[in-house]
Amino acid sequence: MQEILNKTYKRIKSDLGKGKVADYIPELAKVNPKQFAMSLVTIHGEEYNVGCFDKRFSIQSISKVIVLAMAMEIVKEKLWQRVGREPSGSAFNSLVQLESEDGKPRNPFINAGAIVTTDVVVESCLDPYKLILDFVRKNSKSYDVNFDKAVVKSEALYAQRNTALAYFMQSFGNLNSNVKKVLDVYFHHCSLAMSTLELSRLFLFLANKGINPLTDTKVMNPRYVKRINAIMMTCGLYDSAGDFAYRVGLPAKSGVGGGIVSILPGEFVLSVWSPSLNHSGNSYIGTKALEQFSRLSGKSIF
Amino acid sequence: MQEILNKTYKRIKSDLGKGKVADYIPELAKVNPKQFAMSLVTIHGEEYNVGCFDKRFSIQSISKVIVLAMAMEIVKEKLWQRVGREPSGSAFNSLVQLESEDGKPRNPFINAGAIVTTDVVVESCLDPYKLILDFVRKNSKSYDVNFDKAVVKSEALYAQRNTALAYFMQSFGNLNSNVKKVLDVYFHHCSLAMSTLELSRLFLFLANKGINPLTDTKVMNPRYVKRINAIMMTCGLYDSAGDFAYRVGLPAKSGVGGGIVSILPGEFVLSVWSPSLNHSGNSYIGTKALEQFSRLSGKSIF
Amino acid sequence: MQEILNKTYKRIKSDLGKGKVADYIPELAKVNPKQFAMSLVTIHGEEYNVGCFDKRFSIQSISKVIVLAMAMEIVKEKLWQRVGREPSGSAFNSLVQLESEDGKPRNPFINAGAIVTTDVVVESCLDPYKLILDFVRKNSKSYDVNFDKAVVKSEALYAQRNTALAYFMQSFGNLNSNVKKVLDVYFHHCSLAMSTLELSRLFLFLANKGINPLTDTKVMNPRYVKRINAIMMTCGLYDSAGDFAYRVGLPAKSGVGGGIVSILPGEFVLSVWSPSLNHSGNSYIGTKALEQFSRLSGKSIF
Amino acid sequence: MQEILNKTYKRIKSDLGKGKVADYIPELAKVNPKQFAMSLVTIHGEEYNVGCFDKRFSIQSISKVIVLAMAMEIVKEKLWQRVGREPSGSAFNSLVQLESEDGKPRNPFINAGAIVTTDVVVESCLDPYKLILDFVRKNSKSYDVNFDKAVVKSEALYAQRNTALAYFMQSFGNLNSNVKKVLDVYFHHCSLAMSTLELSRLFLFLANKGINPLTDTKVMNPRYVKRINAIMMTCGLYDSAGDFAYRVGLPAKSGVGGGIVSILPGEFVLSVWSPSLNHSGNSYIGTKALEQFSRLSGKSIF
Repeated sequence: MQEILNKTYKRIKSDLGKGKVADYIPELAKVNPKQFAMSLVTIHGEEYNVGCFDKRFSIQSISKVIVLAMAMEIVKEKLWQRVGREPSGSAFNSLVQLESEDGKPRNPFINAGAIVTTDVVVESCLDPYKLILDFVRKNSKSYDVNFDKAVVKSEALYAQRNTALAYFMQSFGNLNSNVKKVLDVYFHHCSLAMSTLELSRLFLFLANKGINPLTDTKVMNPRYVKRINAIMMTCGLYDSAGDFAYRVGLPAKSGVGGGIVSILPGEFVLSVWSPSLNHSGNSYIGTKALEQFSRLSGKSIF
Repeated sequence: MQEILNKTYKRIKSDLGKGKVADYIPELAKVNPKQFAMSLVTIHGEEYNVGCFDKRFSIQSISKVIVLAMAMEIVKEKLWQRVGREPSGSAFNSLVQLESEDGKPRNPFINAGAIVTTDVVVESCLDPYKLILDFVRKNSKSYDVNFDKAVVKSEALYAQRNTALAYFMQSFGNLNSNVKKVLDVYFHHCSLAMSTLELSRLFLFLANKGINPLTDTKVMNPRYVKRINAIMMTCGLYDSAGDFAYRVGLPAKSGVGGGIVSILPGEFVLSVWSPSLNHSGNSYIGTKALEQFSRLSGKSIF
Repeated sequence: MQEILNKTYKRIKSDLGKGKVADYIPELAKVNPKQFAMSLVTIHGEEYNVGCFDKRFSIQSISKVIVLAMAMEIVKEKLWQRVGREPSGSAFNSLVQLESEDGKPRNPFINAGAIVTTDVVVESCLDPYKLILDFVRKNSKSYDVNFDKAVVKSEALYAQRNTALAYFMQSFGNLNSNVKKVLDVYFHHCSLAMSTLELSRLFLFLANKGINPLTDTKVMNPRYVKRINAIMMTCGLYDSAGDFAYRVGLPAKSGVGGGIVSILPGEFVLSVWSPSLNHSGNSYIGTKALEQFSRLSGKSIF
Repeated sequence: MQEILNKTYKRIKSDLGKGKVADYIPELAKVNPKQFAMSLVTIHGEEYNVGCFDKRFSIQSISKVIVLAMAMEIVKEKLWQRVGREPSGSAFNSLVQLESEDGKPRNPFINAGAIVTTDVVVESCLDPYKLILDFVRKNSKSYDVNFDKAVVKSEALYAQRNTALAYFMQSFGNLNSNVKKVLDVYFHHCSLAMSTLELSRLFLFLANKGINPLTDTKVMNPRYVKRINAIMMTCGLYDSAGDFAYRVGLPAKSGVGGGIVSILPGEFVLSVWSPSLNHSGNSYIGTKALEQFSRLSGKSIF
């Protein structure tokens, strides 16, 4: 495994920096684009790394998997009355689909859908910030993981589109808590700063039928685990889920911070980070690295 | 395995006939909706069946997997210059997406996409009818599989929408052969009549890295096999690919004749047939049976 | 003229109450649907009325003509950098078009467009409320016309969709003032309470090359008058502008309060009110009455 | 009047050739872009011309007014069961709207709508070619007006999009005659070659309550005349009807051959021709000339 990671790194090295760093908020725009990290953690606890695997970055949309997992444990299958699970065919922050489908987001991985899952978490408790931090810290076994306050602030300043989405869903009766509060929690979890190693540890329960093998605790119902993987497969990579399935063949979720988490059920979690993005908003090098890894290792779900 | 199939059958039995048989052509409308068959064939050649597994039915859109496999072997990765591989988010015969994306169909499993893959096959040889029949007969080891001429005729009478799609793509320069000829070949392969057992045998190469274990011949490059499975996963069930992945978790392709073929890579092909459809145009009972099977056996790619 | 108005009233009398009163806010829902009024005022100051022509009602979207006229006088042709002047083909509060056209509303008579013209008025002065009231009072010669505070409050409670529109445009840089402030002014002018007679007097400048003949003052540049009439013709009746042009043939603007103002350039302003709406959101009886009037009098621009 | 035409010509002279000649068929692409003609004919028979007013050009979509007038006389108001009368908000050959509105074209001036009106004419008689030619020749008093066979041939070679539209409508049951026949008649009337003077004479009945003053015969019901003018006003200039109403303020219909016919009801028909087009597909110079004319003469319906 370590050898395959090393080989993968070699193959993508010369391309480092290609693509374009996200620039919609200053905090992301100023990241050095040439960084790279990859961490594979098996369900038996073996860990393999290359690059700056302990450097934290903004996980952004990868946090949508966290709130989806939390929301499913809270309201179970009732979640699907408020959010769909089909690929969207449109941009991650589009309002078009919402309008023609009466305020029900197409899936939990577009912004509108993650605002709904965040609303579920907000409704369920007094302190959603703490609930989310506890979940992340416990499962990654990194007790100092935190929100990046500078990123939160930055997000809030460029929040009009997400604010529009939230009010729009509220106009259809699909947002229960206060709009400002839900958006604040949403901006917080998007701004979580974590390393690839921490991400791979955190999501081990998705490769291991709901049980985190590091802490030996049941994180969620195994039935729901299968379902989250299915949604990652069909909706995890914005509007290039099909292309990613074709090239990589693993359920995965990306973020505009340049991170991608992928799962091979029954085997491992493989996280990668490199900040420059392709035109679909996924890490340019990260996607390439996962494709190389899949080719070199023969590992995929297909 | 046989026991699981039997149990599955028991669970869906009382629902037989629910849903609505396809009625856009008379030949499909007059089929008895209460029929059911399920056939699992492993890559080691073991065969398990329930129901009328040797009764032939109209495979309809399942034939799109056949022409996709043939087209990929003919033009390799160049195929993706003419057809995409993303979920469409629209109906299987929609023209909307085609217009906004300059005549390039979203994927090879919507009608427009399958007209393009058919065009590739038509361009490649003198007798596409024979080429397709040979492919199907050899791989299913059923040498009397044939086109159902009554269905071909019926399709041709209700062909305006597909004719519109074809001329529309031609207006964008994405159809090379004669429109009438391509459509005639298209209607022929859609009208192939096969049983669930024959379908499971035919598609074994997709579960076995490109090799048909029954004939011990290489059908296609293993790399392309992985890719076809990926496209089945994200685009195989019309506009409910996400829901199917969520409930069943296997790459699959359905047809409005009521058939569904699903693949567990490295293990088996599982085909099911029951004519009544749900609102997405997939077999109502077939989808339920696959969901039950997946639950009872624990078999899925996630 | 009086005779034609009387005849028109006779013809529509038996249909009074048909259609459906707007119910998105309680203040509109509780209006008696069987009311009717029609007022024709010529550019020479002659006035003809039928029905309850001095009863005030909520003018709603008719106020969009007022803010358009004010905005054109403020920024002249520069207005068209921020808002288009083509029919929208979509519902009056749609976000779809906004998204595909980068936050520029299709015309000043859909909600998004009127939020932009309101923004122009808000930017231009310290007290937009007073500026609007002064404009209306002076030109209608009714110095006690006012905002209906109950309606303002009601609008604000059901404001999510308009709030979404405003934030969405702000995300494209097409809203300069504070979102809350612009929306508050917008809700105020929509809630103006006026009678048909007052409306006909108010808009005389649109029939008289920019000059209000009652006060003998120049309200606006005659060139802009022609242009506002053109926009009323093509965009004034939500998504049934074409049908209204076909049946009535006068530039007009309707409101969900049941009012419609129509202009015959060089001759008169004809306002009508009856609260029940057709499926396009225009007064059911009002449209019928204008159609009858046009037929009986032979008056239309075509 | 003559003086105003002369002045108009002076003002646009230096811009002659700006814009881009239609190039979708070779017959149009090879026209000299610097040509210009303008003909005003009053309902009293006075004629004023500038430029090459007796040179014939391809009237293209202007023929849609001819078949609309003929279709309305044949099926009266029943026409509106098969075609709408609202602005489309999309390109003239779009399929999108057709799909979402079940095969009913938005109005008779987009291609799909004109294929329906052509179908009405084809259904009504044995020789639609003769019927159309007779109508045009009699009303323009030019008995040698004819189809340009080279253009017909050219159109037929680049017909895929219109063929797609026709089959698509047929799939919704909105085309009664044979697709090939309807398209052939459609291509013929689009290829009529006429001069601006002939066009102004031909359409006099639209300015004169249905009566052609030159021949003193009733061409159509005056009620329908008003209605055709209304449709020209809201839908006559492709997707810039609003802009044209704003700038010119006359009901009009344009063609990609560079011609525009405009009507001032009760006064005159004003036709203009200059082959180069703006980005909306309307004559660049023609639109400018009409705008100048309207400004200089103060003539408009508003």
